[in-house]
Amino acid sequence: MPIFVPLSRISHPASIFAIVTGMTDKDCPFCQPKDKVLRENDAALVILSNPRKVPGHFLVIPKRHVEKPWDLTHEELAGIFDLIFFIEKKIIGKLGEGCDVRQNYRPFMPQNRLKKDHVHFHVYPRSLNDYLYKAAEIYETDLFADLDPLEHDEVAKLLK
Amino acid sequence: MPIFVPLSRISHPASIFAIVTGMTDKDCPFCQPKDKVLRENDAALVILSNPRKVPGHFLVIPKRHVEKPWDLTHEELAGIFDLIFFIEKKIIGKLGEGCDVRQNYRPFMPQNRLKKDHVHFHVYPRSLNDYLYKAAEIYETDLFADLDPLEHDEVAKLLK
Repeated sequence: MPIFVPLSRISHPASIFAIVTGMTDKDCPFCQPKDKVLRENDAALVILSNPRKVPGHFLVIPKRHVEKPWDLTHEELAGIFDLIFFIEKKIIGKLGEGCDVRQNYRPFMPQNRLKKDHVHFHVYPRSLNDYLYKAAEIYETDLFADLDPLEHDEVAKLLK
Repeated sequence: MPIFVPLSRISHPASIFAIVTGMTDKDCPFCQPKDKVLRENDAALVILSNPRKVPGHFLVIPKRHVEKPWDLTHEELAGIFDLIFFIEKKIIGKLGEGCDVRQNYRPFMPQNRLKKDHVHFHVYPRSLNDYLYKAAEIYETDLFADLDPLEHDEVAKLLK
């Protein structure tokens, strides 16, 4: 079992990585990625997704083996988004005009080549009517429907 | 022009909201949402998306009018993700078995009913072979291809 001390309790977040042991899962492909690490900070690292959805499909991965997104600390989120924003600024204007960021928590999927249990964020370029839009997202846009007031109230209750 | 002081320079982040003026855009529908605010903290608020893609489609929106994701501060990211994780824990097991989080930066799209320039995060439930998968995402999965080593090197260069 990994030993976890919330980073927020430590005055110098980086130091925790030297203190705490057992933070990685030896069977997890994202704890020690075989892919080239393109950039990293104390909290997270960047690799290219393989397989990839579009050219310029990056993954930003916390170094700690976290399976539930809500177990990420504020310090880890800061480190993850420092890398996400770095990527966005580097690829916008080169690989696309915009950028999508996604974090999918899908415990119902079996871990395989596409699905990893270790939390990760996808970052990839977007442009008007790009291939991703024409091949798949165009069908997603069609799903949008007006929010029914009864549905609103039923869903809103869940946040109580 | 909004006046912006990075929250990280302030010892008590919340206080900045009282000090700085001009942080909202009077024409922005996300600066003063007409929809019912379901939860909020110093940095961000939650509404239901309207139109919505699936039942339980939430938006988490920073209170400050931010158009470029990389202008979000660490404090704002912490506040945004506190709300995202709150939603995830409330809806998983009720509206779905998992959850997707998306932040789309698409300046190439004209602002309309679906597109707002004010940065926001989508949160919605997912389940195995759900409607969203069958209607649209199934086509996205088909896009995945092995990462060619030459493509890897070309894309990796952009992060230098």
